[in-house]
Order: sequence, then C-alpha cells, then structure tokens
Amino acid sequence: MKTELCDRFGIEYPLFVFTPSEKVAAAVSKAGGLGVLGCVRFNDADDLENVLQWMDANTDGKPYGVDIVMPAKVPTEGTSVDINKLIPTEHREFVDKTLADLGVPPLPADEERSEGVLGWLHSVARSHVEVALKHPIKLIANALGSPPKDVIDQAHQAGVPVAALAGSAKHALRHVDNGVDIVVAQGHEAGGHTGEIGSMVLWPEIVDAIEGRAPVLAAGGIGTGRQVAAALALGAQGVWMGSAFLTSAEYDLGVRLPSGRSVVQEAMLNATSADTVRRRIYTGKPARLLKSRWTDAWDADGAPEPLPMPLQNILVSEAHQRMSENSDPTAVAMPVGQIVGRMNEIRPVADIIAELVSGFEEATRRLDAIRDN
Amino acid sequence: MKTELCDRFGIEYPLFVFTPSEKVAAAVSKAGGLGVLGCVRFNDADDLENVLQWMDANTDGKPYGVDIVMPAKVPTEGTSVDINKLIPTEHREFVDKTLADLGVPPLPADEERSEGVLGWLHSVARSHVEVALKHPIKLIANALGSPPKDVIDQAHQAGVPVAALAGSAKHALRHVDNGVDIVVAQGHEAGGHTGEIGSMVLWPEIVDAIEGRAPVLAAGGIGTGRQVAAALALGAQGVWMGSAFLTSAEYDLGVRLPSGRSVVQEAMLNATSADTVRRRIYTGKPARLLKSRWTDAWDADGAPEPLPMPLQNILVSEAHQRMSENSDPTAVAMPVGQIVGRMNEIRPVADIIAELVSGFEEATRRLDAIRDN
Repeated sequence: MKTELCDRFGIEYPLFVFTPSEKVAAAVSKAGGLGVLGCVRFNDADDLENVLQWMDANTDGKPYGVDIVMPAKVPTEGTSVDINKLIPTEHREFVDKTLADLGVPPLPADEERSEGVLGWLHSVARSHVEVALKHPIKLIANALGSPPKDVIDQAHQAGVPVAALAGSAKHALRHVDNGVDIVVAQGHEAGGHTGEIGSMVLWPEIVDAIEGRAPVLAAGGIGTGRQVAAALALGAQGVWMGSAFLTSAEYDLGVRLPSGRSVVQEAMLNATSADTVRRRIYTGKPARLLKSRWTDAWDADGAPEPLPMPLQNILVSEAHQRMSENSDPTAVAMPVGQIVGRMNEIRPVADIIAELVSGFEEATRRLDAIRDN
Repeated sequence: MKTELCDRFGIEYPLFVFTPSEKVAAAVSKAGGLGVLGCVRFNDADDLENVLQWMDANTDGKPYGVDIVMPAKVPTEGTSVDINKLIPTEHREFVDKTLADLGVPPLPADEERSEGVLGWLHSVARSHVEVALKHPIKLIANALGSPPKDVIDQAHQAGVPVAALAGSAKHALRHVDNGVDIVVAQGHEAGGHTGEIGSMVLWPEIVDAIEGRAPVLAAGGIGTGRQVAAALALGAQGVWMGSAFLTSAEYDLGVRLPSGRSVVQEAMLNATSADTVRRRIYTGKPARLLKSRWTDAWDADGAPEPLPMPLQNILVSEAHQRMSENSDPTAVAMPVGQIVGRMNEIRPVADIIAELVSGFEEATRRLDAIRDN
C-alpha cells in the first residue's frame, strides 16, 4: 500500500494517526505509519518538550508529527482568570448539580484543579509550535484548519509541511490558498470537532475541488483496511485516523480500572456506532462525543445552551477531570467517532496497522474480481 | 462490474435505482441496472396499475422492481377525514402564514387538493403490493424496513424477493430474521428517511452483522463510480441510489420552468453538499431534505414541533402542492441526499450509468497501483 505520501514522509504506509498518547504515536511510527502527537493537552510547553524528548528517544529514527489546535484568526486573549469571569453562574450551577446527580465525587482537596484545555488559546498553540520545531518533526497538523500565515511560513522555513483539517470543500480550498500542504478531509462520522457532510460525499468532493494542488488524507469513520480501500478509491492519498487507536494496548492515559483499562476505554469498548452525539458541550464548537449520562444531562429539558469556545471547555474542565478520575464508564466526557462501534477489544498498535494493510489488500482483490468477472 | 446479484436479477450491473418516475426507472433497466419505481405517490391503485402497464410496454423485457412504504406493525387507521381532525390549529396557521411569507400563491379554486401522501398508510401500501404482483416485477423494496410477515410471504409465493432499508445493524438483523432477502444499508448522507450513522461506518457494520445471510446494497452518498467502488470495497454486493437520478434528463415530474427543468431540479442544480437538512417536517420521521426557505421557516424561533407520521405529511401536503406548482426554487420541499452537491447538470440516465461503470473501473485500477507499487 504505497502512495506518493510514503516517499515524501519516508513511511511504509500512508496511515496518519492522530493521538494524544506519545506511546501510541511512537508505536504507529515504528509500525510503518506516521504517528501525530496531539499537543492540546499540554498547557505547559515544558511538558510538551519532555514528551518530545521521549519521542526522539523511542521512535528508532522513524518520522513523526504533531497536531496543534490554532484558529487562523488571532483572538483577543486574557489570562484564564479573566476568562473565568465570562462564565455565567447558571452554567456553573448546572455543572455542579449534574455531577452530584451523576454521583461523581469531588476532587481531593489537595489536588491541582485543571484550568481547562488552554491548548487552543493562540499563545499556547504558538508555544507548541516553537517547542515542536526544535525536534525532528515531519508534520504540523492543525485541527482547526489553516494556522495563521506566519505560522505556516515558520514551519516551511524549518522544512516542515503543514496539514489542516477541513469539513467542506470551501474550507479545503481556503487552506490550500493559504499555503497548507496537505488537506485532511474529515467527514461527519469523525470524533471531536466535525462538520455535517458525510465522509462518502465529502472526501471525493474535496479531492476534486483542490484539483491536485495538495494531497488529501481521508478522515472520519476509518477503522479497518476495507475503509482504507474505500478512502483511496475515493481519491484520497492516505488516511487520517484517531478514534481507532484509543483502544490500543499502548494507550496509557487516564486512570486505570482493575481490568487494566481506563474508564473511557471501558466505555468505548461497550459502545455501538449509535452511541455518539455531536454537541457543543465539550469545547463550544460541535464535536462528536461518546454518548453518556453526562451528554444526556446536557440534552435534557432545562439544560443551558453551551458557551462559545474557549469558555465552554473552561466551564467543564474540572468536571472532565472529576469524571476521568472516577470509575464509572457511564459518566464520561470523551471525543470519539462512530467507528467506536467497531472498537471492541484492546489490541496492540502493530496489530491494528497490520489489519489495515491486509484488509486493504483483501478489499482490492475483491474489487478486481468484481471488475474482471 | 459483476456480483452475484447480477445473475440473480438478470441485470448487467449491480446498480439499483429508486425513483418516483417511471421514465427514469425504465431507462435505468434498459441501461443495465434495476429501476425500482416508488409507489408512494400513487394514492389510487388504478394510477399505479396504469403506470406499471406503461413500464411493461417500455422496458424491452428488462427486469424492474417497485418500492413501497409500509410499517411492519399494522397501525390503527381511519380515513383521511378522521386523521385531519388530529391536526392542531396552531400547525395549520403556521403553514398558512409561512406560505404567505414565502410568497407562495394559493392553488386555483377549481384544482383538486392533495390529500397528502397516503401511500404510507398500511391499506394503501397493501394495495400497491396487490397491483404490483400482477406485473412481472423482480423486487419489492420497503422504505420503512421489514414489511409484515404476510406481505413477505405473499411476495415469496409470487417468486419476488423483498428488500428492506436499514439504518442500523440491529434493524438489518431484524429484517433478515423476518425473511427479507436483501438489505439496503442506508447511511446518514441519504435523502429521505435516514438514520444517524454515516455510510462509511454503517455499510461494513451491516455486512458483518448479517454474516452473508443476505446480500447488502449500499445507500447514502453514491453518485459516482468512485463511490460505487468504495461501496463494493466495504463489502456491499451492489448499490442503491436515488437522488443522483432526480436530475436525469428523463425525470419529468413536477411543473416545468421555461428552462425545461422543474422547480426542484433548478433548486438541486444550485445546491451544494451543505445545502440539506435532516428534519421531521416532511413526514413526521427524520428525513433529509433540500435546505430552502421552507425548511428555514420550520427551524426559526416560534415554529411548532413537527407532528408524528402520518399527520405531518397530511398537514403539509397542500403546501407541498402549492410550492411544486410555484416557480420559486428557493421555496421547495424536496427529499434529497448530500450527493446533491454533485448534481450540477441534467444528464441522460444512460450517461449516469456509463460513468458509474467507468468510474468504478478507474478507481479499482488506481487501487491496484497503490497495492502493487
């Protein structure tokens, strides 16, 4: 399974995997794909620096990338203290009451409170770029579309290509016009921030719209080799995956249950493809999340409207922390795509990659038989 | 492009096309696919009888099928007069005011008013089956899933296989358990009644769930040969299409504009893939529709909640009639899938079919190159 992206990135397969876990990212790169480490969880740039040092020591010289979350427009920013003042009391009371109703215990008094994911504040995302460019990264991807022009230039000066996520052909064209090198076409099925157009329609639409000015990675709904074959049949040069690796054996984020799995892994292993919702409650922008008693509470009569980004995540950050330290898989806040219905066992990264390759080959041979019959 | 369905149905390509137009259905069958005539618009069984006589005379002996809309459970039914009493005044007033706001003229005083689409009343759908089984039909498809057991038996006794639409693996399994012969796996992208799971995830999930007990047709988001290749790569035995043929040259339903196109064709030619919404306003069940000033009005503050099936369609039936006889493409009520973004010209059915075949072949050769590189 080889496209031009393989030569360009020095990878064996055109499989790009976004993951918040450096263990998973390193395992993907070592298995022949490109591991892309999500930076948004690093509120402190020093933490990212330490993790990238670990990556450099544990990837056997294989290429890897990073993913940042940076809006193209530079917003007015304050400190997190200023921002806190913008959150209505009604919203805080709703969160407190919901957690009490769900039986989620408070944090220990001496534990540090999460300030919320500040990674999508512009200044923080810029610090991620600064840190990452001191490492031998091969890709900077931006989950919110084109980064500002000067950030693209900064990456290009360091010889690093830039990828940007797009949920419509219009956005994809804008990214290419801005100098973005690779477009990630992400369909409705995807976890996290995602648009309304399904992958089956969106991928070829974006491929056609940008007319070869940049390669397209297909995202949203991919978990098997058959889906990789479908993506490449539709004109993508490779795939961009995320959810399917959250139940990999190497994924070690989150508090462990006695089973050895984390609470969210337990929740994902139990979920069907119908058990996700696309809501603004995680960040303020529509994002697909695992359906849970937490998302149900926000859907119930009397729940407040979610706040805009970045306020909503600051509002719910301590709630997320409390749920992730609790041991109840029915009350979690977790971005994941509809492919969660197929995530039914914990598997090593290398096994997932091996199936993507063999499943792709089987699918193409089936198509050959249908064509040549 | 040949699968086992080709031999079974005596067709050249595994392309099944649902259409309300007998002209399109006949052209599909003559071009090597299977035209499936939608019966729901025939409130009077005699009208269906006349149209099927036309089909028999105009398909050169090629196979064709029919599509009915029948719930598995037999509901309590009254006449349309009884049903009308269940519609709240608030709803009627909202419809009247909205049409006035949109500038849609009333019907001529002497024109017969539509009673609403009664085709999904159980008694009417049964009359469709009775009539259709007197013709050499090769398939009965049910848009609402499994028909009642006795209807399946009736079809089987006549040697006619039954297909049923499914939006989840659970529904697909139920259909097969009920004796349905072919499952149409329809993703979120599709026009008309559709579920929440995207085609990329749904199709292989249903293929795997029913374990070969019935062939699967992939529906939702297909308009090109590349998408046919993706569907077959994902394990489907064929595809089920609808929207893409609404802008075929043979489609002759609806009042014509001076351009020779109908009002809804004009609206569809202008739409992008982002210009659809999935709402309950057409029938009472979630259906994907072309976004228009009519759908916007139902989304606005103060609009009433749509009524349950079958009341909602009876409420809006005269409104649909008024809009379809008006000449304003911005105020229409039309079910269509996200593939509408690719429906940008009027093409003969034979040309659409030819591209589906050649596009499929090109996609498979591209995949071969990626595999064998």
